[in-house]
Amino acid sequence: MAGVVSYSMFVYVVENQTNGNTAFCTLNEGLGKVLRFGAYSPEVIAKLKWMEQVLAPTLQKGVRQAGGVNVKDLTARALMMGDECHNRNVAATSLFIRTMAPHLLATDVDKETLKKVIEFISANDHSFLNLSMAACKASTDPVVGLKHSSIVSTMARNGTELGIRVAGLGKQWFTAEAGMPKGLYFPGFSEKDSCRDLGDSTVSEIGAIGGFAMASAPAIVKFVGGRASDAISFTKEMYEITAAEHTTYLIPPLDFRGTPVGVDIRLVNKLNLLPFINTGIAHKDPGIGQIGAGILRAPKSCFVEALKEFNKLF
Amino acid sequence: MAGVVSYSMFVYVVENQTNGNTAFCTLNEGLGKVLRFGAYSPEVIAKLKWMEQVLAPTLQKGVRQAGGVNVKDLTARALMMGDECHNRNVAATSLFIRTMAPHLLATDVDKETLKKVIEFISANDHSFLNLSMAACKASTDPVVGLKHSSIVSTMARNGTELGIRVAGLGKQWFTAEAGMPKGLYFPGFSEKDSCRDLGDSTVSEIGAIGGFAMASAPAIVKFVGGRASDAISFTKEMYEITAAEHTTYLIPPLDFRGTPVGVDIRLVNKLNLLPFINTGIAHKDPGIGQIGAGILRAPKSCFVEALKEFNKLF
Repeated sequence: MAGVVSYSMFVYVVENQTNGNTAFCTLNEGLGKVLRFGAYSPEVIAKLKWMEQVLAPTLQKGVRQAGGVNVKDLTARALMMGDECHNRNVAATSLFIRTMAPHLLATDVDKETLKKVIEFISANDHSFLNLSMAACKASTDPVVGLKHSSIVSTMARNGTELGIRVAGLGKQWFTAEAGMPKGLYFPGFSEKDSCRDLGDSTVSEIGAIGGFAMASAPAIVKFVGGRASDAISFTKEMYEITAAEHTTYLIPPLDFRGTPVGVDIRLVNKLNLLPFINTGIAHKDPGIGQIGAGILRAPKSCFVEALKEFNKLF
Repeated sequence: MAGVVSYSMFVYVVENQTNGNTAFCTLNEGLGKVLRFGAYSPEVIAKLKWMEQVLAPTLQKGVRQAGGVNVKDLTARALMMGDECHNRNVAATSLFIRTMAPHLLATDVDKETLKKVIEFISANDHSFLNLSMAACKASTDPVVGLKHSSIVSTMARNGTELGIRVAGLGKQWFTAEAGMPKGLYFPGFSEKDSCRDLGDSTVSEIGAIGGFAMASAPAIVKFVGGRASDAISFTKEMYEITAAEHTTYLIPPLDFRGTPVGVDIRLVNKLNLLPFINTGIAHKDPGIGQIGAGILRAPKSCFVEALKEFNKLF
């Protein structure tokens, strides 16, 4: 007889209440040996199983008890507290735990389980990242297909290529070879182990946080390298290639200026200034997982190609 | 028959593990109408009673379950997250809740009570302040009586005078008229309602946080007024009148420079540069409580008097 094992993977559901669309993201597994960075050993699977059977159902009860959680508000507050919410989520994770704890206590889940659930979320300063990514996707998706708009609606990488979509060009992708991040490596790893830039998490930068909000997060240089003053410069540069400033995500060190939002491919090409990305680094070989974190620029040629195509519209 | 009502007031006990001394502080009641700012109406008393009967015994069990909480570590992490831990404690309070939640869940306290306790602490972004004040006192007390030292060991105010003590002059106080804070007022109040600078909380500044760590907390200007760039300048000025830089409390926007520590009365007098204080503002009439928050300088004459006395030692 063949055995059948059932696997299901819970996701966060984040709703854009203005536009009515939703986006989804799995729950954060932690750093190091995790599935989302390519690890799949028995301990990785065991953790995912616990997340499926204990963590997710408990959080589900808590979130329902809370009547939903305002991710935009948590993000805005975290930007006041030194996070940029892509590679630094310590404040957002703390605020999420603080917000959820009373609601979790109002569910029928026993104290021992609640303790384990809070300990799991708390053990990983990046727990909030996945909520944040879904929120960024929910907030940027409505731009896809916006007529005549030269704003980048989407940016993502797969370890080989980075791709962008431009609002006025709908669902067409423009791709280029993904870059190599420069950063700090976990003990035992170095640049020679690194995979090319990887993942959907650049939805953060397009969502006006992450690399674009580095100025809010001077302490992040301890995780990705560089000096605190660099963090300010990176954000200031991004104002040059964006169409607007965010009205809710504010940067205290820049006297509460809004984060740069809406990458305009015309400005990127005109100024030859490429979007800045703050990212985790995966091992180039499968099965190992995350080995560090760092920064890099998006590659140029996809922006050149996209502008050529965009100019055909007129 | 005369009725007898028993009141007791729990305190945090913070131990300086290097020197073995301890310091104490009551639990934070919140902002506005609170006993520590001079309010004493029935609702103030009722809240204190709940704190005595529910909050404090629950926290006591949690802290014992945890085997103690490392306040220095929480403070250092909060300084990485935009707190200066006197007038801005949102990160420290979040980290305290995050730290305590699993330990509270390991006690025999029921879920409904735990929910109320966490909600109470979470409803007040200043909850951590009282732990922080006790920690600052525990860390500065060993300096009292240090032979030949011109470092300020203590600074406190009572709404009329501000007093300082100098390490090499032991327990002798030097006082001057307390200043008037400049700041932002809660709705319905203004500068004309303000009491002179008040309270023991300047132990924060002497403990190398608070007004001395403003550069860590650009977002605090939303609470006390001014511009984010002012926050940087205030800290930079304080390096001019201090003897050292803290080795654990670091400031990300200053590329992780340690906070200024050890106010030297010789430098204060030589440079005519007075310690900077970040503070709450109390109403001048009893019974009303806190009405705002702001900033000011310590008055000069007590530093002049102290230096005269200090010079007699040699």
